[in-house]
Amino acid sequence: MTITLYDSALSGNAHKIRLALAWIGLPHATVAATGDYRATAEFRSINPLGQVPVLVDGDLVLRDSQAILAYLAAAHRPGEWDGHDPAERGRIGQWLSLAANEIANGPALLRLERRFGATIDRPRAAAITERILPVLAGQLDTRDWLEGARMTIADIACAPYLALGGEGGIDLTPWPAITRWLDRIAALPGFVAMPGWGAPI
Amino acid sequence: MTITLYDSALSGNAHKIRLALAWIGLPHATVAATGDYRATAEFRSINPLGQVPVLVDGDLVLRDSQAILAYLAAAHRPGEWDGHDPAERGRIGQWLSLAANEIANGPALLRLERRFGATIDRPRAAAITERILPVLAGQLDTRDWLEGARMTIADIACAPYLALGGEGGIDLTPWPAITRWLDRIAALPGFVAMPGWGAPI
Repeated sequence: MTITLYDSALSGNAHKIRLALAWIGLPHATVAATGDYRATAEFRSINPLGQVPVLVDGDLVLRDSQAILAYLAAAHRPGEWDGHDPAERGRIGQWLSLAANEIANGPALLRLERRFGATIDRPRAAAITERILPVLAGQLDTRDWLEGARMTIADIACAPYLALGGEGGIDLTPWPAITRWLDRIAALPGFVAMPGWGAPI
Repeated sequence: MTITLYDSALSGNAHKIRLALAWIGLPHATVAATGDYRATAEFRSINPLGQVPVLVDGDLVLRDSQAILAYLAAAHRPGEWDGHDPAERGRIGQWLSLAANEIANGPALLRLERRFGATIDRPRAAAITERILPVLAGQLDTRDWLEGARMTIADIACAPYLALGGEGGIDLTPWPAITRWLDRIAALPGFVAMPGWGAPI
């Protein structure tokens, strides 16, 4: 059964899945779904929202990076990556929602404007970013990972667009707990780099 | 062990949790967290994002309606509400992300403007709404529930702000599969009404 990841080299959302697949060690094919291809009927048939990533695993066709992480965790790292009990499942879920909403509409949009020339509501994206940075930093001030004593899909979901924050003009120097956490993730064995987020020197 | 829900009568996000608690049959206290109270240090200490709902269950303090649904499902309706296998977990996760992002930034914002006078980027919220209505309708055209053959937290997470769509000026008459689904949910035994979303006549 072949796993295929529809991705894009510069997508932080796709990178969440590249990281998860690398850490699990799952062989897979990749299809670069960039530019005009995302508007084709062929691609819309696997994701009507027209976005990457999409994971195809046998009969399963999944869009949305958080949903794909939830699937991969349940299938390959149950408990460890998605919570050992209902309370941890819920706590991790808080960060999946933060990644799906605030991080996507804050740091990711600021990068989309500055790096790719998109038209965005900059004051709104900046306000969202300013609202969540202290929340993330406050959580990471006294712990190594967002929830529990090991990396979970909460970390994988939230990290990429913060690591790419510099491309959006976000200054993380006031938030050393966040940069230490990003470096901690990038220093893990098997970490995969992407343009804008490399392993710490 | 007392469960406390911090909510607001007119919040569709809070209503997701009111519905889940009612269907599970969990006794709980409620605290109306409205207006200025959400900016207080007391409330910020339980949710630094200053939003309802927040669920407190013993030592567990959870923000974000999708995360709370994931917790309640894992604790009280494992499998049935959150997926019997990893593939279903992932499929349900797609709709949790849609609720956290597109529904919150589309239909919910349109209602926030029209019903509560908020300043929003209306063209963006309308565009997001137009993008997701056919996705939801397409999924519901041939099935009763978003995933699987029973109601899951995917339905609970997505339904309220569509049911309240009329308050945001959204016309659902082109999407009968969505209105049938909303009526199906509201007709379930134990359904709890809220202003703007009542049981079908």
